[in-house]
Amino acid sequence: MKSHYPDDSLALHTDLYQINMAESYWADGIHNRKAVFELYFRKLPFGNGYAIFAGLERILDYLREFRFSESDLNYLREEQGYREDFLDYLKDLQFTGDIYSMEEGELVFGNEPILRIEAPLVEAQLIETALLNIVNYQTLIATKASRIKQVVKEDIVMEFGTRRAQEMDAAIWGSRAAFIGGFDSTSNVRAGKLFNLPIAGTHAHSLVQAYKNDYEAFHAYARRHKNCVFLVDTYDTLKSGVPAAIKVAKELGDKINFLGIRLDSGDISFLSKAARKMLDEAGFTDARIVVSNDLDEYTILNLLAQGAKVDTWGIGTKLITAYDQPALGAVYKLVSLEDEQGNMQDRIKISANAEKVTTPGLKKVYRIIDLENGKAQGDYITMHDENPEAEERLKMFHPVHTFISKFVTNFAAKNLHKKVIEDGKQIYETPSVQEMKEYAKDNLNFLWDEYKRSLNPEEYPVDLSQKCWDNKMRNIQEVRDMVHELHLGGDNR
Amino acid sequence: MKSHYPDDSLALHTDLYQINMAESYWADGIHNRKAVFELYFRKLPFGNGYAIFAGLERILDYLREFRFSESDLNYLREEQGYREDFLDYLKDLQFTGDIYSMEEGELVFGNEPILRIEAPLVEAQLIETALLNIVNYQTLIATKASRIKQVVKEDIVMEFGTRRAQEMDAAIWGSRAAFIGGFDSTSNVRAGKLFNLPIAGTHAHSLVQAYKNDYEAFHAYARRHKNCVFLVDTYDTLKSGVPAAIKVAKELGDKINFLGIRLDSGDISFLSKAARKMLDEAGFTDARIVVSNDLDEYTILNLLAQGAKVDTWGIGTKLITAYDQPALGAVYKLVSLEDEQGNMQDRIKISANAEKVTTPGLKKVYRIIDLENGKAQGDYITMHDENPEAEERLKMFHPVHTFISKFVTNFAAKNLHKKVIEDGKQIYETPSVQEMKEYAKDNLNFLWDEYKRSLNPEEYPVDLSQKCWDNKMRNIQEVRDMVHELHLGGDNR
Repeated sequence: MKSHYPDDSLALHTDLYQINMAESYWADGIHNRKAVFELYFRKLPFGNGYAIFAGLERILDYLREFRFSESDLNYLREEQGYREDFLDYLKDLQFTGDIYSMEEGELVFGNEPILRIEAPLVEAQLIETALLNIVNYQTLIATKASRIKQVVKEDIVMEFGTRRAQEMDAAIWGSRAAFIGGFDSTSNVRAGKLFNLPIAGTHAHSLVQAYKNDYEAFHAYARRHKNCVFLVDTYDTLKSGVPAAIKVAKELGDKINFLGIRLDSGDISFLSKAARKMLDEAGFTDARIVVSNDLDEYTILNLLAQGAKVDTWGIGTKLITAYDQPALGAVYKLVSLEDEQGNMQDRIKISANAEKVTTPGLKKVYRIIDLENGKAQGDYITMHDENPEAEERLKMFHPVHTFISKFVTNFAAKNLHKKVIEDGKQIYETPSVQEMKEYAKDNLNFLWDEYKRSLNPEEYPVDLSQKCWDNKMRNIQEVRDMVHELHLGGDNR
Repeated sequence: MKSHYPDDSLALHTDLYQINMAESYWADGIHNRKAVFELYFRKLPFGNGYAIFAGLERILDYLREFRFSESDLNYLREEQGYREDFLDYLKDLQFTGDIYSMEEGELVFGNEPILRIEAPLVEAQLIETALLNIVNYQTLIATKASRIKQVVKEDIVMEFGTRRAQEMDAAIWGSRAAFIGGFDSTSNVRAGKLFNLPIAGTHAHSLVQAYKNDYEAFHAYARRHKNCVFLVDTYDTLKSGVPAAIKVAKELGDKINFLGIRLDSGDISFLSKAARKMLDEAGFTDARIVVSNDLDEYTILNLLAQGAKVDTWGIGTKLITAYDQPALGAVYKLVSLEDEQGNMQDRIKISANAEKVTTPGLKKVYRIIDLENGKAQGDYITMHDENPEAEERLKMFHPVHTFISKFVTNFAAKNLHKKVIEDGKQIYETPSVQEMKEYAKDNLNFLWDEYKRSLNPEEYPVDLSQKCWDNKMRNIQEVRDMVHELHLGGDNR
C-alpha cells in the first residue's frame, strides 16, 4: 500500500518497457543523444470539430519532481533484479531537456504536436507514459465539457461527477479540465481547494430521509444555510417536493435566498414545466430549476427541443468519464535523433495504415488567421527552419488528399508552441484556471460555427508545408530502401 | 496546486453538499444519530452475468486517515465562509462507526449491499462520495478484467493501459483491480511496487527507431536484457521485424532467452499466423506471440475464431477505461436511522421507477449454495434478525416479478459480509492481492457456466426474503400515507 512508502514518487509511474529501453540506451552509451519526441492524437474525440488541450500544469509539476526515490530504487533492485551500475545512474537522473507546449485552453486538432520534447533520449523515453496519461485524460474532459457548454449556451453548468469518476485523480483533474472547457463549478471540494475552482452543490435525498418529510427537511436545511436549492424528488416531486419547497420559501421569506429547486429523476421535460408553473404561480418567478440525471449534450439538446424549463444543468457521469468515448488516443513519437557525429537525423515510423505513418523531423505548428474576418483558415505544420509569418502567400493542402488545396494571403501565423521548460527549468508561468478558461473561450471565437456544432462538424484543416511533406516522402522511401537492403527474407505477400 | 498543501487530506474529496448536510445535521443536533447506509449498484456492467468487487483496501486506508487537515479547515473558513462553531466541530471529527463489507474478489450482483455502513449520521454522510468513487471504478475494472479472462481462458493477459487511463489513480488502482479480476501482470512499475503486482513489458517502437533498423535494435536490447520479446512492426512486420528477430535469436543462441515477438498493428489474425509459421520453420516453436492493439473480449473472441496464433494478450485502453461502459452506477442509500427515542427506524426512497425504490431496513446478504452440486442457487437478502442458515427450506422469489419463485432445500447460506471496521478501528486484515485473485477465481466455481458467458448470460437470482419484501411494501405504503396527509396540494396528474 501507498502509505508504506512515504517517499513514493511518480518516476515509476511508467511502463516497465521504458525502464528496460532506458537501460539499453544507457548500456550502449546512446542515452544522452538529443532526441525530439512529439505528443499528439490522430483523431478528434466524440466526433467533435476541435479539442481543448489541458494537462500542462500537471506535467510541469511531474517533471519538476521527477526523481527516483530510495524506495523506487530499492524496488527495482530487490524486487526486479536491476543491476547496481544502472541503478547508480538512475539515482541522480533528472529531467534536463526543453519542452515546447501549447497552453492549456488552446484549441487542438488531429495530427499536430501538442507538446514537443527535446531532451536526452533516455529522459524523453522515461517520461512518455506519464505525459500521455495526463494529456489523454485532461484533454478529453476539457473537450467533452466544451461540447456540453456549446449546447447549453449561457445556462450554468455544474460538474457533479466525483462519485462516478475513474478513481480520485480523475475526479479532481477532471473537474479542473471541465472548468477550463467552460463549466462554471464543481461539486468536489478538494478540487476547489487545490485548483481554486468555484464549488457548488445542493443537498441529497438522504437529508430528506433524515427528517420526517420534505417540508421538515427543507426547513432544517434553511435554518443553517441562507442560500437554498431544495431537492424535490425524494418521495413525490409534484405532490410533495415542489409544494414543500414553495411552502418553506413563503414561510421564511427574506430570511433565506430561495434560489430554486433541483430535479434528479423522472421525466425532466414534463416535471420541469410543471414545477416552473407551480413556482411562477406562487410568485417565485426568479427561482431556478436545476436538473441532474445522467445528462450529456445529446439529452440536453433533446430537453431544450421539448421546451424543458431548465436554468442550470448538473452533469456527472457522462462528462467525468467521457462516457461515449472514454479514451483519447494520444501517442508520443520519436521524430528526430542525434547521430554519432552529433547531427540530428529524422526518424519515422511506418505503418500499413496511412494515418499511422509519423511525420518526421523537428517541426513547428502555426494557426493561420485570416486578417479580414479574424477566423482561422487552418493549422499549418512546417519544418523548424520555415517561417510562414514572413510569407505573403501560403499554399495549404490536405495531408492525405493532397489535391485538396488552397492559397491563403493576408493572414497572421500564430506559433502555437511556447517554450515552457529550458534545460530542465520551468520558464513558463502557469496562468490561473480562470485565465485558461477565458483563453479557451477566446480561442473558440477564431472558429467558424461550422467547426463547433456537435453533430457532423466540418473538418478543420491541419496541413503540412510543402517542405514538410517532401521530407516525409523522402523518409518513407529511405525506410523502404533500408528494409529492401537488409535482405532478411520473410513473407513477401 | 497540490504541492502548495503538504497537509492535503482526502476529507475534502467529497461533494460540497455532503458538508452542507453535515452542517445542518450538526446544527440540528441530529448528527450523532446512528444511521445505516448501504452501498450497491442496480445493474451489472457490460451485460455481464456477475461483477467482482474491488476497492475495500483503499476504503480502509481512506477511513483510517479521515481527518480535516488545517489547510482543509482554512479553505472552508476563508474561501467558503463556513462558521467557526462548525469548523471547530469538524476539526476533531474521525470515523467512529462500523463497516460490514464483502471481501475484494467477491462476486457481486445488482441490488445487494456490497458495504453496509453503521455510523453516526454525519460521518456516514461525509464519506459517501469517496466510497462511491473508489468502489465504482475498481469494481468496474475487476469485472471487465474477469470478462476478458473468461475469453482467453488459460492464455496470459497483461495490463498495458496506463497511458490511456483516466489520470494516474485510475492507472494504478485499475491495474490492481485487473489483477484481482484475473490478469497476470501490469506494465505500470509503480503499481507493481505499491501493490506487489507482477510487472511485465517488452520494448517500444522508439527503441527500433533509435537504431539503424530492427536487427540492430534487437541486438542492442539483447546486449543488456536476457529475456527478450521483440516488437516487430516498426517498419514492416514480415519483411523486416520477424526475420530480424529470428536472425538475432539464432546468432545469440543460449546467450538470451528468446521468449518471442510482439505484434502491435496490422491484421493480427493474418500476421500472427504468418509469424508463427516463420518462427516454427526457424525452429523457435516455443517462442510466444504477444499481441496488443486495442483489444477487448470481443476482438479476442473473433481472433480466436479465426485461428489467430496468439499466446499472450496485452490489453490497454479497452480494459483500463472500461471502454464500453466506463461507469458503474453504484449508489449509497440511507435505509435506517435512529429516532429521538433512540429506536432505529426504517428509511426508504421512493421513485417513479420501480427499480429505484430502495429496500429499507438493516439487512444481511447470503449466498445460497446447493450442497449437492456446490453451485450457487442465488443470493438472498434478509432482515438482520433472520437466519437462513437455520432454516430447512427457503422460498426464493424474484424481487420484481414476485410470482417467479422456487423452494430450496439442502443448502448452505454464506453470509457475504465481514465486519471490517468496529467503532472506527479496522479489525480486518487485508489479504494480499494474490489471495484476492485466488478468491475471485474460486468464487467463480460456484457459478454455473450460464452465468459466466460474455453474451446474454442467464440472470443470477438476487431475492428478498418474505419478511424483507413485506417490510418494503409496508414502508412504501407509509410514505404514500405521509404524502397524502401532508395535504400540500400540487399537481395531481
